[in-house]
Amino acid sequence: MRSITPVLLCGGAGERLWPLSRQSFPKQFAPLTGTRSLFQQAATRLAGTGPGHHYSAPLVITASDYRFIATQQLAEAGIDPGAVLIEPEARNTAPAVLAAAIHASAANPDAMLLIAPSDHAIGDRDAFAAAVGQGLAAAEAGRIVTFGVAPDRPETGYGYLELAGRPDATGGATDLRRFVEKPDAETAGGMIEAGNFLWNAGIFLASARSLIDAFHAHAPNLVRPVSQALARARPDLGFLRLDPAAWSDAEAISVDYAVMEKVAGLAVVPLTGGWSDLGGWDAVWREAGPDARGVALSDRALAIDCHDSLLRSEAEGTEIVGIGLRDVIAIAMPDAVLVADMSRAQDVRLAVEHLRGKGAAQATDHPRDHRPWGWFESLAIGDRFQVKRILVHPGAALSLQSHVHRSEHWVVVSGTARVQIDGEERLVSENQSVYVPVGARHRMENPGKVPMILIEVQTGPYVGEDDIVRYEDLYSRDPGE
Amino acid sequence: MRSITPVLLCGGAGERLWPLSRQSFPKQFAPLTGTRSLFQQAATRLAGTGPGHHYSAPLVITASDYRFIATQQLAEAGIDPGAVLIEPEARNTAPAVLAAAIHASAANPDAMLLIAPSDHAIGDRDAFAAAVGQGLAAAEAGRIVTFGVAPDRPETGYGYLELAGRPDATGGATDLRRFVEKPDAETAGGMIEAGNFLWNAGIFLASARSLIDAFHAHAPNLVRPVSQALARARPDLGFLRLDPAAWSDAEAISVDYAVMEKVAGLAVVPLTGGWSDLGGWDAVWREAGPDARGVALSDRALAIDCHDSLLRSEAEGTEIVGIGLRDVIAIAMPDAVLVADMSRAQDVRLAVEHLRGKGAAQATDHPRDHRPWGWFESLAIGDRFQVKRILVHPGAALSLQSHVHRSEHWVVVSGTARVQIDGEERLVSENQSVYVPVGARHRMENPGKVPMILIEVQTGPYVGEDDIVRYEDLYSRDPGE
Repeated sequence: MRSITPVLLCGGAGERLWPLSRQSFPKQFAPLTGTRSLFQQAATRLAGTGPGHHYSAPLVITASDYRFIATQQLAEAGIDPGAVLIEPEARNTAPAVLAAAIHASAANPDAMLLIAPSDHAIGDRDAFAAAVGQGLAAAEAGRIVTFGVAPDRPETGYGYLELAGRPDATGGATDLRRFVEKPDAETAGGMIEAGNFLWNAGIFLASARSLIDAFHAHAPNLVRPVSQALARARPDLGFLRLDPAAWSDAEAISVDYAVMEKVAGLAVVPLTGGWSDLGGWDAVWREAGPDARGVALSDRALAIDCHDSLLRSEAEGTEIVGIGLRDVIAIAMPDAVLVADMSRAQDVRLAVEHLRGKGAAQATDHPRDHRPWGWFESLAIGDRFQVKRILVHPGAALSLQSHVHRSEHWVVVSGTARVQIDGEERLVSENQSVYVPVGARHRMENPGKVPMILIEVQTGPYVGEDDIVRYEDLYSRDPGE
Repeated sequence: MRSITPVLLCGGAGERLWPLSRQSFPKQFAPLTGTRSLFQQAATRLAGTGPGHHYSAPLVITASDYRFIATQQLAEAGIDPGAVLIEPEARNTAPAVLAAAIHASAANPDAMLLIAPSDHAIGDRDAFAAAVGQGLAAAEAGRIVTFGVAPDRPETGYGYLELAGRPDATGGATDLRRFVEKPDAETAGGMIEAGNFLWNAGIFLASARSLIDAFHAHAPNLVRPVSQALARARPDLGFLRLDPAAWSDAEAISVDYAVMEKVAGLAVVPLTGGWSDLGGWDAVWREAGPDARGVALSDRALAIDCHDSLLRSEAEGTEIVGIGLRDVIAIAMPDAVLVADMSRAQDVRLAVEHLRGKGAAQATDHPRDHRPWGWFESLAIGDRFQVKRILVHPGAALSLQSHVHRSEHWVVVSGTARVQIDGEERLVSENQSVYVPVGARHRMENPGKVPMILIEVQTGPYVGEDDIVRYEDLYSRDPGE
């Protein structure tokens, strides 16, 4: 059994799936298909065993903003990460992949890596495991193996892989002839007819050594900054923070452009059983499995005489109804609603841009604000008050803090809180309340085994998040974080 | 100066403007155009003076469910109703108009009545007042005067009035030839070309005596049940509740069908300055004054490359964004979103029907639940808890009550409350809180001069509205109300 280290890339911001996906909580962490997040699905897919291989603990590469979301979601899925590398800023995929390879190679230069985005949908875990098994021999022989999906339509939104011949009927590796960029419709149609083109799924299997060699050969300018970013990395509560100065010297470039398109002798293994990059709401619509009229609905969604449309309610208490629609995407969140023509799915980023331009929080902030200790959401905000729902994970604690402008009333509605107010500590259980006066130093934690939920009513002339003085913090957060 | 008594009909349920309009809070009470409700706009339009006339206190006819909403909105507009008649059930407009005429005639058989729906938009108060002035002479001569709007398009959604000749160029009354039902497009086009057809605005000016005579002549079967419903009416806190048994004997029929279409010698006065029945979202779109591309937006709404579309956010904290839409209506409420093709505006009632069929509260219940003392809305509901925002009008009080399954925490965030808990009374001001244990008899009132707002956190195994035992109620409400 060959051991494979999964490398999970999860630093992207996913603007094209706004309003579900926000910069503060992007699509890979959302339950876009099914009840678990795409990231959890990816991590689970790359755990356990498959034909001729088993997975070791994953190497996770993400942004600082997502570090606690990633580890919390892995914990929920019962997976211990081997390491979590934090990119000081987004530099596209090439520096991230090289960082992962160098990091893995330190322990074992021949470590076998499976590098995968964490925001794609893969329908059939067994088919995926079989494909990985098929690729192992080529990867062990020192080749880089990529995975290709047999196209079922002339898709213009994906890159293609041209094989040297027809795909291997037994599912084995075939030589790659070249990468093909996103084609126009005519070219796409021609490629489907030709039969030796597959969609580029952006997943790679290779040893750390082969990858590093490939970077030395084809992207040598990345090697020094990425190596230095790792060498000078700073451990922080179990995370490994890459060095910002070195990292910013690394070119922002995709691994395809930087390396893969130039490597000779790439092997391609066909991936069957369903795949989507979920790169826009049109892709989500297709992946959702529309009915005979082309309609795909979430819970709390209703379509009357609609065709080829996607209606999703992502808000607990909100019903969405479509009447007489054709080719429409409608997504309802508690704080934002998107209604777009299906053909404009790729222009959703324009909405984000416009909202950012007018300073609307909805452009970037998810209504549920995820923190290392849990999350909160604003239920109502008015003149001189705000109401929040707060969830604290078992064993987690908010920082010791005080506020200059607001006092707070806390009512515990589920679980038990331990609270400290100006040095006095007490337990507060379901249906009990506490008052925190302006200026009092206070801390709240969950000493129990189940999530603790409380309702916080803030009153005062100013109820913004930035009215906070932190005295101690379990999570070593920066002042603005 | 002739005195005119406005008769405001406001008992309708307005399903075609769902989700803004709900059975529990229909469109006439919503700020659909501008900041005040249509009902308030109508009441204000029919107050004060005009050419040759002044208005006396209005006679309001509404449903029991809306009685406190109507009086509260009149109070906000600074208008004292002369009487508020309560229809025990909806019987269309003919019985309501007859009841108003009989009620007015008891004080003065020659009372001049202006009967108007309260859910229409009228752009120009002065033009409306001028039209009423123009109609007075005919009405004083014993005729029934109706008002007609010069059509600017071959609308198939309105009924028409055919005049005996061209409308009077000076705005005076013209003889009516006949009522024309909603036409098809070709007929509508022909009528516009002919030039002697006006839209039927459903507004009438006539003396109580003339109206009652017309009912005796053309709808004699209505006279006995409506007279009896009034004779046996029960006064209740300033409202006059028509007798349910007698009322249910009255035929449900519109005043046009029952009487107006049969009356000889009806006079028509042209109404200029803008009018819309706001009978569907397409009419609201038109009334909103779409821009050069045909786009009409509310606050918090954004259109990118849209045409001929209406985007409205009716939820305080919700942004709505349209991309590449054509002929689409999109309305966002906190608990429901409608997205419909413009041509299907009249089918919005299908959405209500479907939601009712699956038992969704959104079909009928407005998220803000209006009560005689103010309103409340649910901010969050979860396992064993619910959070509400509650507003209590100055001088108003909730009933003395208790709950079997839930306890309540109240935090006052604005104004001052006087609370009574198991016989003990105290004042609770902004930033103070109170706890109401399960089973405690409690009451909350607002002794102040400004609205009192509080956040209520309920905890317990059941948090439904029907867990309430009432001991005393200022508003004489029924147990289920």
